[in-house]
Amino acid sequence: MQKIITLQTTKKQGLYDITGEIADLVKTSGVVTGIVSIYARGSTCSIMIQENWDESVQNDVICLLNKIVPHGVWEHDKQDNNGDSHLKSGIVGVSQTVPISDSRPGLSTWQNIFFCEFDGPRERREVVVTIIEDK
Amino acid sequence: MQKIITLQTTKKQGLYDITGEIADLVKTSGVVTGIVSIYARGSTCSIMIQENWDESVQNDVICLLNKIVPHGVWEHDKQDNNGDSHLKSGIVGVSQTVPISDSRPGLSTWQNIFFCEFDGPRERREVVVTIIEDK
Amino acid sequence: MQKIITLQTTKKQGLYDITGEIADLVKTSGVVTGIVSIYARGSTCSIMIQENWDESVQNDVICLLNKIVPHGVWEHDKQDNNGDSHLKSGIVGVSQTVPISDSRPGLSTWQNIFFCEFDGPRERREVVVTIIEDK
Repeated sequence: MQKIITLQTTKKQGLYDITGEIADLVKTSGVVTGIVSIYARGSTCSIMIQENWDESVQNDVICLLNKIVPHGVWEHDKQDNNGDSHLKSGIVGVSQTVPISDSRPGLSTWQNIFFCEFDGPRERREVVVTIIEDK
Repeated sequence: MQKIITLQTTKKQGLYDITGEIADLVKTSGVVTGIVSIYARGSTCSIMIQENWDESVQNDVICLLNKIVPHGVWEHDKQDNNGDSHLKSGIVGVSQTVPISDSRPGLSTWQNIFFCEFDGPRERREVVVTIIEDK
Repeated sequence: MQKIITLQTTKKQGLYDITGEIADLVKTSGVVTGIVSIYARGSTCSIMIQENWDESVQNDVICLLNKIVPHGVWEHDKQDNNGDSHLKSGIVGVSQTVPISDSRPGLSTWQNIFFCEFDGPRERREVVVTIIEDK
């Protein structure tokens, strides 16, 4: 089964929790054991598995990436002024694969699935969710 | 086929080679061609494919991550004092997908599969291994 | 279906667009919906999904990684003088999973699939492409 999740982002940068929507799709698929592939369709965003106790780690992720990849010093900035957004996307990566166990994403207690926006706000972002049964 | 590998970590930070256990599971599954998804169930650890000639690259990985992500300067530190462990996990990533070729993980000569501990020592860490046949 | 793409790299470091070859393999496989796993067989190279409008982002990727991971300061350099190449590979990662939609890689308009060379030039680099149908 493959479905596209859409979301609107409201800030220049931020993490958005999409765990609930992924879990719903896994349940709907009927797959008990397998994998779910989560893919961000954009070159200025990412998917990250991260803690969701509160917003502190999410804020720290953006803070760290801004420190590693400063704004405004890249060759690509002459075109779109968003070179840093592309580089953050490339370092974190646009795809994550999560196991399916007992008809649910096999996350640990503190792991949630986040869409990372690095060049928002955007009216519509797309995440492709593909569910595969094991053999 | 899906199985959970468990391991004990003995240091605050370090890489642990799990290639042999993954290869055994691939052999047991009977899958000749496909993929094996390797997933770390924790938000302060990662999976990395890396060289295993000796321990030098493994030491360098920890050294680099400590340099990029210093300890003790994050918002999350007020809670658990392990903000850097979460950030290292997010940058490296908790999942890797390796091809299966001829009933074995399709690694190159120098590639091995490592569990990365960023917040140890831990009595029990879990890695979910899911094997999928191609079509 | 599983196939190995080979390529020759001509520079010490650089990104090489392999989107066309991946798309051809997906079409040949006959799979309409699923995933394609792309895996670099080497511990001094990576796979990255990134923008391909022109070469600026590709140049920026190499520039950023050289800044984060300087050359010549690693324990592994005593052996091969390429510690930085291994570390760049580990940070970016050797595998990416892309959805297949309508018999094509489900990339967004500006996303292409790149092989990243961090220790070239090399006569022959191998990328394992595995195609899996969804259920």
